[in-house]
Amino acid sequence: MSIGIFDSGIGGLTVFREISREFPEADIYYLGDTARVPYGNKSKNTIIRYSLECANYLLGFGIEALIIACNTASSYALETLQESLDIPVIGVVEPGVELAIRYTKNRKIGVIGTQATVKSNSYKFSIEEKGDFQVFQKACPLFVPLVEEGMIDHKITEMVIKEYLEDLVKEGIDTLILGCTHYPLLKESIQRIYPYLTIVDSSKAIALYFNNIGTEFKGRGEKKIFITDESHSFEKLKNMLVGNIPLEKLELSKLCSL
Amino acid sequence: MSIGIFDSGIGGLTVFREISREFPEADIYYLGDTARVPYGNKSKNTIIRYSLECANYLLGFGIEALIIACNTASSYALETLQESLDIPVIGVVEPGVELAIRYTKNRKIGVIGTQATVKSNSYKFSIEEKGDFQVFQKACPLFVPLVEEGMIDHKITEMVIKEYLEDLVKEGIDTLILGCTHYPLLKESIQRIYPYLTIVDSSKAIALYFNNIGTEFKGRGEKKIFITDESHSFEKLKNMLVGNIPLEKLELSKLCSL
Repeated sequence: MSIGIFDSGIGGLTVFREISREFPEADIYYLGDTARVPYGNKSKNTIIRYSLECANYLLGFGIEALIIACNTASSYALETLQESLDIPVIGVVEPGVELAIRYTKNRKIGVIGTQATVKSNSYKFSIEEKGDFQVFQKACPLFVPLVEEGMIDHKITEMVIKEYLEDLVKEGIDTLILGCTHYPLLKESIQRIYPYLTIVDSSKAIALYFNNIGTEFKGRGEKKIFITDESHSFEKLKNMLVGNIPLEKLELSKLCSL
Repeated sequence: MSIGIFDSGIGGLTVFREISREFPEADIYYLGDTARVPYGNKSKNTIIRYSLECANYLLGFGIEALIIACNTASSYALETLQESLDIPVIGVVEPGVELAIRYTKNRKIGVIGTQATVKSNSYKFSIEEKGDFQVFQKACPLFVPLVEEGMIDHKITEMVIKEYLEDLVKEGIDTLILGCTHYPLLKESIQRIYPYLTIVDSSKAIALYFNNIGTEFKGRGEKKIFITDESHSFEKLKNMLVGNIPLEKLELSKLCSL
């Protein structure tokens, strides 16, 4: 069985990594639409169109499930993709929310993400729908560039984490959702600073979701990663996440003409 | 006389601010194409098309000179715009380069910018064309988000500056070009840490350029700022740079249909 994953960039490789670890025999095809990153500042219609294009390309590999490893696309295009495709489509929001409401004891949940994700309130609304929880959100625009700079264990990153999370911690949250696919790389640093927080990592939540529904991913273990535009900065992060699997350049026109 | 300025985002407001200070009577029209920011990861043809669209919109105000306050657009679209428009078109690269080669004593010039700017080598090539200079470049991807977070005088920013500039300083540069329109906001912090560096700020270089050619900007002093997409983060930086001049939202379709 094979699975497709797409993201506007390559942060979603944290999901690719987790799914690969959990289902080593699965064929996994990843598409990072790096030529059009970020989706966060595009209109809803554009995001849906881009998402359909990514999904269609991955369907060409005969995928049997699709993961939207991008918060913006999950917030805006999940429903359309679920309606128009014949295979299961999973976003990053729901699995994270499910875990967080299971873990929290004091019903105070923190959510961190990009400005676009926080502004969309997709986590907040989804959590509040499920019961009487308090949600505290914080946009952390410096986290993505810090991760892409490879400054994972850096003193500067530690200071930025404290700067951003101080308010949430003061509110008394006991559970924190990492609402951006880049953030799992900062999980250890955050946990070291705030050892009493339960941290929900969407990539692990998605792997767990497939485990829970008893999906069996058996295949030849083929792993492919496509990007629509190259950049030196992608290479560093890619190596950190998935080692020597090559990045294959895909012409954007191939995506749009489908 | 009136002048048009465009940028992919609102960093170019540092140029708007400088030109406004230098020519308070000028009518100045600024267009930040925030719906399509960043230009840095687009193809050359796309960047030229976007730049022509921005220029055409501003021509509607009867501007008599155009400043491309965006490094990417300056690198890729300057020539096309100069050829196709009947008014003077000035990019950000040349004025900065002119100043730097005038200031440097040891002929060792540092250039900092975004990854796209450094990769394009536009400053490096332009400086080397003018004589026997050594150019040392460094991409500083954290500077833009730090500025947009308003963390101008922050301890974290000071550490990031040292982290990025250490290598250039070790190479013995005596002059540093701020090759990104966001960076003038960090100029004081950089100068405080490295008081012996001569820092070239493109926005000041452009104002100086107009002064040198004896341009007279007389008008009603009208100032207008248009953006193609709104974002909370723009507002903070805009206030820092130009105070209470409002951001006027412009439909992207208006730009594309010209």
